[in-house]
Amino acid sequence: MSPQNPIFIPGPTNIPEILRKAVDMPTIDHRSPLFGDILHPALNGVKKVLKTSSAEVFVFPATGTGGWEAAITNLLSAGDRVLATRNGMFSHRWIDMCQRHGLDMTVVDQVWGEGIPVDRFAEILTADRGHTIKAVLATHNETATGVRSDIAAVRRALDAAGHPALLLVDGVSSIACYDFRMDDWGVDVAVTGSQKGFMLPPGLAIVGFSPKALAQVENAGLPRTFFDIRDMTKGYAANGFPYTPPVGLLNGLKVATDMLLAEGLENVFARHHRIAEGVRQAVAAWGMKLCAARTELHSDSVSAICTPDGFDANRIVARALHTYGVAFGTGLGDVAGKVFRIGHLGSLTDVMALSGLATAEMVMVDLGLPVTLGSGVAAAQEHYRQTARKDG
Amino acid sequence: MSPQNPIFIPGPTNIPEILRKAVDMPTIDHRSPLFGDILHPALNGVKKVLKTSSAEVFVFPATGTGGWEAAITNLLSAGDRVLATRNGMFSHRWIDMCQRHGLDMTVVDQVWGEGIPVDRFAEILTADRGHTIKAVLATHNETATGVRSDIAAVRRALDAAGHPALLLVDGVSSIACYDFRMDDWGVDVAVTGSQKGFMLPPGLAIVGFSPKALAQVENAGLPRTFFDIRDMTKGYAANGFPYTPPVGLLNGLKVATDMLLAEGLENVFARHHRIAEGVRQAVAAWGMKLCAARTELHSDSVSAICTPDGFDANRIVARALHTYGVAFGTGLGDVAGKVFRIGHLGSLTDVMALSGLATAEMVMVDLGLPVTLGSGVAAAQEHYRQTARKDG
Amino acid sequence: MSPQNPIFIPGPTNIPEILRKAVDMPTIDHRSPLFGDILHPALNGVKKVLKTSSAEVFVFPATGTGGWEAAITNLLSAGDRVLATRNGMFSHRWIDMCQRHGLDMTVVDQVWGEGIPVDRFAEILTADRGHTIKAVLATHNETATGVRSDIAAVRRALDAAGHPALLLVDGVSSIACYDFRMDDWGVDVAVTGSQKGFMLPPGLAIVGFSPKALAQVENAGLPRTFFDIRDMTKGYAANGFPYTPPVGLLNGLKVATDMLLAEGLENVFARHHRIAEGVRQAVAAWGMKLCAARTELHSDSVSAICTPDGFDANRIVARALHTYGVAFGTGLGDVAGKVFRIGHLGSLTDVMALSGLATAEMVMVDLGLPVTLGSGVAAAQEHYRQTARKDG
Amino acid sequence: MSPQNPIFIPGPTNIPEILRKAVDMPTIDHRSPLFGDILHPALNGVKKVLKTSSAEVFVFPATGTGGWEAAITNLLSAGDRVLATRNGMFSHRWIDMCQRHGLDMTVVDQVWGEGIPVDRFAEILTADRGHTIKAVLATHNETATGVRSDIAAVRRALDAAGHPALLLVDGVSSIACYDFRMDDWGVDVAVTGSQKGFMLPPGLAIVGFSPKALAQVENAGLPRTFFDIRDMTKGYAANGFPYTPPVGLLNGLKVATDMLLAEGLENVFARHHRIAEGVRQAVAAWGMKLCAARTELHSDSVSAICTPDGFDANRIVARALHTYGVAFGTGLGDVAGKVFRIGHLGSLTDVMALSGLATAEMVMVDLGLPVTLGSGVAAAQEHYRQTARKDG
Repeated sequence: MSPQNPIFIPGPTNIPEILRKAVDMPTIDHRSPLFGDILHPALNGVKKVLKTSSAEVFVFPATGTGGWEAAITNLLSAGDRVLATRNGMFSHRWIDMCQRHGLDMTVVDQVWGEGIPVDRFAEILTADRGHTIKAVLATHNETATGVRSDIAAVRRALDAAGHPALLLVDGVSSIACYDFRMDDWGVDVAVTGSQKGFMLPPGLAIVGFSPKALAQVENAGLPRTFFDIRDMTKGYAANGFPYTPPVGLLNGLKVATDMLLAEGLENVFARHHRIAEGVRQAVAAWGMKLCAARTELHSDSVSAICTPDGFDANRIVARALHTYGVAFGTGLGDVAGKVFRIGHLGSLTDVMALSGLATAEMVMVDLGLPVTLGSGVAAAQEHYRQTARKDG
Repeated sequence: MSPQNPIFIPGPTNIPEILRKAVDMPTIDHRSPLFGDILHPALNGVKKVLKTSSAEVFVFPATGTGGWEAAITNLLSAGDRVLATRNGMFSHRWIDMCQRHGLDMTVVDQVWGEGIPVDRFAEILTADRGHTIKAVLATHNETATGVRSDIAAVRRALDAAGHPALLLVDGVSSIACYDFRMDDWGVDVAVTGSQKGFMLPPGLAIVGFSPKALAQVENAGLPRTFFDIRDMTKGYAANGFPYTPPVGLLNGLKVATDMLLAEGLENVFARHHRIAEGVRQAVAAWGMKLCAARTELHSDSVSAICTPDGFDANRIVARALHTYGVAFGTGLGDVAGKVFRIGHLGSLTDVMALSGLATAEMVMVDLGLPVTLGSGVAAAQEHYRQTARKDG
Repeated sequence: MSPQNPIFIPGPTNIPEILRKAVDMPTIDHRSPLFGDILHPALNGVKKVLKTSSAEVFVFPATGTGGWEAAITNLLSAGDRVLATRNGMFSHRWIDMCQRHGLDMTVVDQVWGEGIPVDRFAEILTADRGHTIKAVLATHNETATGVRSDIAAVRRALDAAGHPALLLVDGVSSIACYDFRMDDWGVDVAVTGSQKGFMLPPGLAIVGFSPKALAQVENAGLPRTFFDIRDMTKGYAANGFPYTPPVGLLNGLKVATDMLLAEGLENVFARHHRIAEGVRQAVAAWGMKLCAARTELHSDSVSAICTPDGFDANRIVARALHTYGVAFGTGLGDVAGKVFRIGHLGSLTDVMALSGLATAEMVMVDLGLPVTLGSGVAAAQEHYRQTARKDG
Repeated sequence: MSPQNPIFIPGPTNIPEILRKAVDMPTIDHRSPLFGDILHPALNGVKKVLKTSSAEVFVFPATGTGGWEAAITNLLSAGDRVLATRNGMFSHRWIDMCQRHGLDMTVVDQVWGEGIPVDRFAEILTADRGHTIKAVLATHNETATGVRSDIAAVRRALDAAGHPALLLVDGVSSIACYDFRMDDWGVDVAVTGSQKGFMLPPGLAIVGFSPKALAQVENAGLPRTFFDIRDMTKGYAANGFPYTPPVGLLNGLKVATDMLLAEGLENVFARHHRIAEGVRQAVAAWGMKLCAARTELHSDSVSAICTPDGFDANRIVARALHTYGVAFGTGLGDVAGKVFRIGHLGSLTDVMALSGLATAEMVMVDLGLPVTLGSGVAAAQEHYRQTARKDG
């Protein structure tokens, strides 16, 4: 792999120069006031990105997986009933984590490529008159299938059923990529990581808790210390951390949220949509289909592209890496070998996206797939031209 | 605080230039073979630093606190009895974590400044004929008090009692600073972090499990996913991680272990001892005492220095930071306000140490303490001169 | 301009990560032995890249222009006769410099797009029975027109005429990009800079002097101090410099030559040729022509592409920068407004080249030129596919 | 030498983190508007540091030596008479350069350790009724001897004599360290480099020309191209350079001048004076003398310290480097072996300075000099304490 080529995995993303430098800090005293000047702007920046004014944000030296664990251990007790769907590898893993923590999972299995089955959730929630369900898990963007689900609809289903369950949302590959409205959607926990929309190296779990969620923390019976938000709360109040904080990454988070907010969140989302749409135009020009079943499910952060029956999609990823030094994502779980993925989140330009599409074309032709060189590139070029800044 | 002055907190340490650059990497595909070329040398390097040929090493995107949690959740079940001493803030915190995970703690309280009470441990272990004690916690270096305990002696106590309890050791501020012999001492879990002897930014929990410990993992009842070493084991076998790995820090760990092993561990330890001894000579010249009760308890990674009765030691730390831009460590817990700490671990030179001592002198004189300017510096200079390389 | 897009100016080039880090050094004492360990490997590495075993290499904190001045001021005296051709902006500027230093220039003007007129040089040299011509200037690669000249043929012309004039070659945009044979071709002075084939930031003039050239230095009457190679020679002999050396860039030069030699010079040249040929295939697919008049003149480091009569080629460069954040080169001097240039030297991959071609296509279509989107990309893709590593 | 110890050579200095990062840039298109946004703020920042509103500033990819050459070649012609004094290695070298350029030097030799002999200059200028002297060279701070001369007095001598000669000042190790008033003092050319008061890596010659100097450029007969300020002027007017600019260093210069001006020049000068005075107190406590003959000659950027007769001062520098990894400056020229130098310019703190003094003490005791450990440190500590910020 050439370190000079852009990377097209669905996170970690290409890291902007300014964030590389923000993270690469000499050691400061994390018990000095200098640290508070990094921590609080970072937390406040995340709140704005989450579109929340009421939630509290917690940042752990961990990953999105740690964020999931923070969500469940701070709110639930062994035996608690939890509703979830399994429509991809990441929703599957969160369910698995819950089961390992002794939660009572009600799982609605979905075809991979579909979103959250809101109608089925509505039925289950309505039927749960005794409110035995304590939490609903929702994966906003299934990174494995490139499927975006409708979190607002899940909230409507909860409200229509008059159900008090907490709404826990995995926004790892959606937050800071496309619209996420923690307050408007009544999200009780939002989970993400540093290495996706925030464009940083991995190493941070970023979690928002609503006031309703915060009120439940004392009742949660699952044991935790590292991920206990009560310790974090105490630490933050004293401009500190309950243990050694990852200062450089937090400084990166401060600068990343500054960047995102300076660009304007709606502009950030529009930029992701534009890049993604070019990729989708290319896929169509290749005569191929996305794993995502319908247009409204199309993710703006990652596209999973179905390869013909009988063709091992992993060969595309392997050859791209070995022959052209470009990294795409493989299929995972149920869609292993059936899709390859192009990540288009974070600070990716149209120009960089075109080089990924051109590479995918070369590889597919190399491997005998019926794709015409330049065809997808031309479709994407046309889209990018039409949507380029108009004052040029 | 000036970012150009050296830092004298007991970790995170001053980061060598080469490690700054090793950590600051562009994104690579962590599912590509490139990652294995970082991961395995890092793990193998840690094994050598731990002086183990039989243990397995696991590295989490977390901190030493996460390493403690990995140790207990992978080995113990709620209600398990655990023996520990409380002789400083960090041993206290580990005990607190165990209590929050529902373990049955047998705690021997010690005066802060003392080490692990091996005789008392021996009595308790010998008395525990039914082997109800499942694990013994031992903090090798109490960072809060600058006290080094004798882990080999704890092992001897276990062996003398014929007791099968696991020996779990917090080596956060000892490993890679002074001698640590995982195999020789029969350590079952060794815990450290990236930001101490490994001289890296914080963000990694580094944990070694002995074969005996590994054999118990399936029986451990405490829930865990993020810290589950079974997932890690599967990941490593496939050159990967169960979630997004902190690639830059792992690359730093690879380079840091290369550095340490190239220097030679015994040389690394001798270097720490030499720097520490100079600091201790200065303390004696000031007419002050260390918190560590006896010479054999003196830590080579951090010195906690007692200030006169009635004097608030935190004033030294505050003034050093504000007036001279130098960070020392405050006292924590029982010794808050009674000691200030000089960290002298990691890649610190005699020349840098002298600037810390000179700063401490200025601050103490500023605050009216009966210290003579230059006195501690001169004592340390004499020690450093006498022990400098002889071929100069 | 996005700092994440690759850059397609004909130097400075995209800088490999490893060279960024090699240049970015803390201050060392340049009078200590550490400096010699940087300087001498850098000089020796350059000698190998120049394919010389007999020349001496000198490196100045300057640019290629400074290298030209070093060449003439160390070898010539006011009034000395010098033969040169003007076939582009850079050969023009060197001639201008000579005139400003009072040299007596015999200039053969060429159509821009042509190479050095070796036959005409041969006539002039043969006619110069009195050997009044003291030096012949030759620009190996005219960066302004993308024209490669035949230095070996110039040497043959000199030899055929039995003429003792020095052969001074501007290899700024050829050295380390395609074959340069200082010894075989009898080059007396070779000039280049850090920011082209060596892939470093600008700031170094790199100059090789043959033994024959060195023998003339004492006789040169032009005044010089900063560029005096006698001072440099004395400095190098003492592991130093006659003034403060640019240590970071020299360290970068050491690492860059290591990289080039580890890859193998012939592999480096083949890589440049492969990338360049893809660009040329794209140009042909667009139905456009290079400024270079014939195939044997085609440069492997930069392509100057002629736009249709009446079209201002600068519009392409401006729009690419403004609308797509990509930098191409404008036309200079006689070909200003008539060509735009794609630099393809240094550490450029096929994947990066494709993004440049895709951008050029979008811009040309935006501006109404009769180019089909994807056409040039497809031609280049086919070339890159055919010539990709075969074991993929 | 440890890269973690501070460096005490009189330039290049310790580089602040923020400047390291400002210089370490990815390649941008230096013909794009982005470059102007770096260049012009850098030039304007330098003007403010020079305290000039009327001069033009030119920045070359070179060193201070190149700056001298720019000064003389743009203003003088072979045979022009120039007045100068030789009171150290750097004034000597500038005189040597002038002689090599065919200038007619009137040199007043001084004991090294003395400043510019203003009275003697006054006599010579007054005697030069025919105004044959075209320029007066003045070295503001002799880096070799740690001597500061009085530039305002040289101007007064010129004015008193009614002499129109240009006043060319080497401010390499004074500018941005202590007061320099280009306009007030009637300086016609001010020369410095990037690696001293501007705290950057070496690689830039920075030169200011007064309107009077600019008016003479067309009359200057010395040949020059690389250093020709007429080409620079044209380039700057088009937001460019006559050749490839050193973009990263220029960006560093922009940020460095921002830093200096944000701190306030008078504060910068006071900071240098405070650090220097601490060093001088230490020297006195050691019972040693500075090379600078009198108090008013004491440099605030470098101290040259005389060692006892018969003792080779170079031994101090060699042992400091080899045994303690610290770089001091050796004596040069007439004072070689008689002095060692402590550079205290740029971003040096009191704490860093103390480590240098402590090192010097260890070395001197190691070598048998009659110095008491801690004595100089204590004297400097007392000075730094007394002059520390008062709100601490």
